[in-house]
Amino acid sequence: MSDTIRPLILVTNDDGVSAPGIRFLVELMKQLGDVIVVAPAGPQSGMGHAITISKPLRLDKVDLYPGIEAYQSSGTPVDCVKMAVDVVLHRKPDLLVSGINHGSNSSINVIYSGTMSAAVEGAIEGIPSVGFSLCDYSYSANFAPLEKFILSICNNVLKNGLPKGSLLNVNFPKVDNESEIKGIKICRQCKGKWQENFDERADPGGRKYYWLTGRFLNEDHGEDTDEWALANNYVSVVPTQFDLTAYHAIPYLNDWDF
Amino acid sequence: MSDTIRPLILVTNDDGVSAPGIRFLVELMKQLGDVIVVAPAGPQSGMGHAITISKPLRLDKVDLYPGIEAYQSSGTPVDCVKMAVDVVLHRKPDLLVSGINHGSNSSINVIYSGTMSAAVEGAIEGIPSVGFSLCDYSYSANFAPLEKFILSICNNVLKNGLPKGSLLNVNFPKVDNESEIKGIKICRQCKGKWQENFDERADPGGRKYYWLTGRFLNEDHGEDTDEWALANNYVSVVPTQFDLTAYHAIPYLNDWDF
Repeated sequence: MSDTIRPLILVTNDDGVSAPGIRFLVELMKQLGDVIVVAPAGPQSGMGHAITISKPLRLDKVDLYPGIEAYQSSGTPVDCVKMAVDVVLHRKPDLLVSGINHGSNSSINVIYSGTMSAAVEGAIEGIPSVGFSLCDYSYSANFAPLEKFILSICNNVLKNGLPKGSLLNVNFPKVDNESEIKGIKICRQCKGKWQENFDERADPGGRKYYWLTGRFLNEDHGEDTDEWALANNYVSVVPTQFDLTAYHAIPYLNDWDF
Repeated sequence: MSDTIRPLILVTNDDGVSAPGIRFLVELMKQLGDVIVVAPAGPQSGMGHAITISKPLRLDKVDLYPGIEAYQSSGTPVDCVKMAVDVVLHRKPDLLVSGINHGSNSSINVIYSGTMSAAVEGAIEGIPSVGFSLCDYSYSANFAPLEKFILSICNNVLKNGLPKGSLLNVNFPKVDNESEIKGIKICRQCKGKWQENFDERADPGGRKYYWLTGRFLNEDHGEDTDEWALANNYVSVVPTQFDLTAYHAIPYLNDWDF
């Protein structure tokens, strides 16, 4: 029994409190500190930075993680972070980790991602925050090869902190074994977008409805991008911020004649 | 009858297709081009950059705007932009305007805002895009003083375009008359955050539920911020981007020992 103060680590995600990705992450975080889980009751993928303001939220204790205090919220991933801080902890944790997401959050996906928005919300609140995602959408994805890298990144964040106003977006390539991963690369967000293609169908009454589908268009083949790193079996780490000001555009706009 | 090609202008919002703010904006846009409306069926405030991937979407023509093709979508503001481009227009409009939001989207609000996320989505798709918000949450807010400024900003965007990867976040102070507005100021996003404070209640069965409430903390009193401009009766225009890379943090992270 050591009397060292262990860091308090908040774990959340967007795939729901019982998803394999968050279960793997909770197990790892137990090695680094005291863990508390506040995560959505069910899948919240693609929720971006949504918050719930037009209806009330539920927060229920769940008995999913032996020895760990865990809650499910009826809200979005961002709601979970807000509830964790204000309702459950009444203080800021020392680290927030979100994920491991079942699927990529590289490039423009960062902006649609509930996993990353939870981490962004943590950073807005001043909590050192990291979002983890694996480029494999499968429920039975293989998270084992990620262990060493997740522990190394979290240890660094706990030891060094993160520059004010920033957080980390960490994506892992899909591999069978740890040895296939070439290392960690600090990257910038690749320029890319989704080309949407709605799948139009008719319901039994003949009324149209639409499923959102699309394909990712990579518009940037720079070797300093997260997409390049992942395609070459590196772990991509993109420092991410929530000051959205396009500073380079300010002089241009100051020349306009309003 | 002029044979000049009029620009095609997509109008959307997050307060719903029949909100007074969008009705005012549609009327103004008719002066500048051919208008099409694709907006949420009901309020979608705080939806951030959420997209709908776990359920199908509806898109229905509505007869709200004489002479204008208008649709309501069951989805989020971002879904509306995607549906407008892929299902309705089959091409990119020349300008996207979102709003006028009933309430401020300055400072960190940009990240929670459905209004601004619709404009961000437009910019991701390569459409010159502007989000408009008025610092008045009232349904019966006075939009008349904004007219001159909205037309001037949109005319500039149509004439000059916007730097690649950027859009405009325009907020208006609440005033009674146009003459109270001192002018347009190009600003940066003010550093600030919401201090959440959940309102805990019990339902008739005794089970707890929570309403998200909070107060805005301004952590930045720079005279080049949007908050300063609005507090001093200027229209704030923040060029906004969706490359979230915290470039300044890259050298710092490259020194870490993973």
